[in-house]
Amino acid sequence: MARVMFMRTAAVHRALISPVWWAHSSGARAQRMRTFSALMSPPSKAVVYDQEGSPDSVTRVVEVPPVEVKEKDVCVRMLAAPINPSDINRIQGVYPVRPPVPAVGGYEGVGEVHSVGPAVTGLSPGDWVIPFPPSIGTWQSYIVKEQSVWHKVDKETPPEYAATVIVNPLTALRMLEDFVTLNSGDSIVQNGATSIVGQCITQIAKFRGIHSINIIRDRPGSDEAKEMLKRLGADEVFTESQLEVKNLKSLLTNVPEPALGFNCVGGNSASMVLKFLRQGGTMVTYGGMSKKPVTVSTSSFIFKELSLRGFWLQKWLTSEKSKESKEMIDYLLCLAREGKLKYEMELVPFDNFHTALDKALGKLGSQPKQVLKF
Amino acid sequence: MARVMFMRTAAVHRALISPVWWAHSSGARAQRMRTFSALMSPPSKAVVYDQEGSPDSVTRVVEVPPVEVKEKDVCVRMLAAPINPSDINRIQGVYPVRPPVPAVGGYEGVGEVHSVGPAVTGLSPGDWVIPFPPSIGTWQSYIVKEQSVWHKVDKETPPEYAATVIVNPLTALRMLEDFVTLNSGDSIVQNGATSIVGQCITQIAKFRGIHSINIIRDRPGSDEAKEMLKRLGADEVFTESQLEVKNLKSLLTNVPEPALGFNCVGGNSASMVLKFLRQGGTMVTYGGMSKKPVTVSTSSFIFKELSLRGFWLQKWLTSEKSKESKEMIDYLLCLAREGKLKYEMELVPFDNFHTALDKALGKLGSQPKQVLKF
Repeated sequence: MARVMFMRTAAVHRALISPVWWAHSSGARAQRMRTFSALMSPPSKAVVYDQEGSPDSVTRVVEVPPVEVKEKDVCVRMLAAPINPSDINRIQGVYPVRPPVPAVGGYEGVGEVHSVGPAVTGLSPGDWVIPFPPSIGTWQSYIVKEQSVWHKVDKETPPEYAATVIVNPLTALRMLEDFVTLNSGDSIVQNGATSIVGQCITQIAKFRGIHSINIIRDRPGSDEAKEMLKRLGADEVFTESQLEVKNLKSLLTNVPEPALGFNCVGGNSASMVLKFLRQGGTMVTYGGMSKKPVTVSTSSFIFKELSLRGFWLQKWLTSEKSKESKEMIDYLLCLAREGKLKYEMELVPFDNFHTALDKALGKLGSQPKQVLKF
Repeated sequence: MARVMFMRTAAVHRALISPVWWAHSSGARAQRMRTFSALMSPPSKAVVYDQEGSPDSVTRVVEVPPVEVKEKDVCVRMLAAPINPSDINRIQGVYPVRPPVPAVGGYEGVGEVHSVGPAVTGLSPGDWVIPFPPSIGTWQSYIVKEQSVWHKVDKETPPEYAATVIVNPLTALRMLEDFVTLNSGDSIVQNGATSIVGQCITQIAKFRGIHSINIIRDRPGSDEAKEMLKRLGADEVFTESQLEVKNLKSLLTNVPEPALGFNCVGGNSASMVLKFLRQGGTMVTYGGMSKKPVTVSTSSFIFKELSLRGFWLQKWLTSEKSKESKEMIDYLLCLAREGKLKYEMELVPFDNFHTALDKALGKLGSQPKQVLKF
């Protein structure tokens, strides 16, 4: 733990969403010199961007000097943090809620407690924690934040699952819980089923005795994708072209008509989800991979009594819902430890950030989710 | 009150949705001769259709012989019954729930009690009643049904309002009540605002201190339509072309962003309702006059958190909801008596049924709602 005389306040570092100090002259910094020593974080490395734009051109890895660890602060050495599509969208400037620039990239991750302020209780060096609610700036080697924003997790958890549990698995579980009451024997339908959220939905549904009808794109490798989903517990897997039939529901043999559907694609693929739904069913949109809107007939609303909703994880991370969401996270990580919730990821050393970014951007073809390892 | 020896059972007449007896030979009818006299309805006239198709070619007015008024039956002399678009759709065979043919047309109406079976209490000759839940077969001069399906209404009510209170005003009130909790000072937005449901929404909203934003088509007479809606209490009325602006909400000056929207048009007009809605708002579709579907962007679902629902009155007429709906009907008819709920109608003698039908079919240009007067 470094104790130095030249320092910035932890508050500045904490709010790494606005690290304007990089532009400061050493003279300006010297003015903040203090005459006593303080608990400080180690120096850190962070992926920052000074302006929004193409992530591979606007991001750079910078050295961040130590920051003070105040009374209630916890200094966490990051272990792993994923590159999620929404992280990329924030950097591109197309995500609707974005930090002001300059900013540090990343939104979720897992780390090990490195040091704690004197007023911290319940967390000790060596504990594993995830930021909850997740927040901007997980792509850095050390983070100092107040104790209240860290949620302790079991150290037996594979770190890549602890690092990625919020954006995808929690979305899957919340969507299964929050719209329609499902009972064992019921069914759900989803498109984009090979996405990580899709795989989580299939697996969680399976544990709960809920059948899943899965729609995937027609593409090379769709047979392998079908097999993969079946292994995860999918009851039915169809490519979109298989669904170009007059009576979609005749394809369902041992699976009841679903009351709940999930759409992360839009366009025709969303229409297929709607067609599978039973009278009074609900479709939840959580993504739009095809970049096409959802189109719905009047009679689907009136006579089929369908409801169309949207899911935005952000809403479920507020303090009002946070206790419930933390319990869900603990449950999901338990499943991950038992090998009952799994999805493919690639761990990449932080030093290779730009290679991982290129893969996340799809420049190197289809790739597993990239998880930075610090 | 006619007492005759040759008769059919009231049950056959009651189930006028299937008046197969018209085809019976007099010989067959004679087999049902009874040896005692019974309370009978007067002979009746009814609009029947033997097959689905173009309403002006498949409907005909027929004479219906008297039927028995059984112990718990009430024989009602119809006073007025409207020709609603859904009545036409049933005859055309395009409404999703339809009676088997042959059938008598009409779904709602008002009548005066003509005679009652000996076990009937609470209803006496001279009382006014509406069928509730409404049911097929109101286009006839006498109807015999069990007491339980008649709801007594105040005789001071203008009969054309009593006859039309369910399909349009009850739709308006239920939609204002059943999706979003609105408080005084809130607002709603709707398209198709000159429809009768639209006019009812505007008026009911006004009584409740709820602002209304009304969208109407561009057409000759749209200035008059605007004036008419303003007189009914509309806060804002826009033609669709007025809404072709970048920032729709800049058009709202003293009206808050609406949490609830109503769509009876579809297509671009539905998109305008969606654009007006505030974060987390709900759009309820209850019609599709443009015959175009509703198209919604992914971000509207996820980041604007919009919900899209449908309204089908049928769901609210079930026994579970019927008490509440009857109270709403009483309230709406009270407003109609006070002149606080009004819309244009044309009363047409039943003998001129085919002229009224032509008008309802739009063959004679834009016309007020046609209400048959018996």
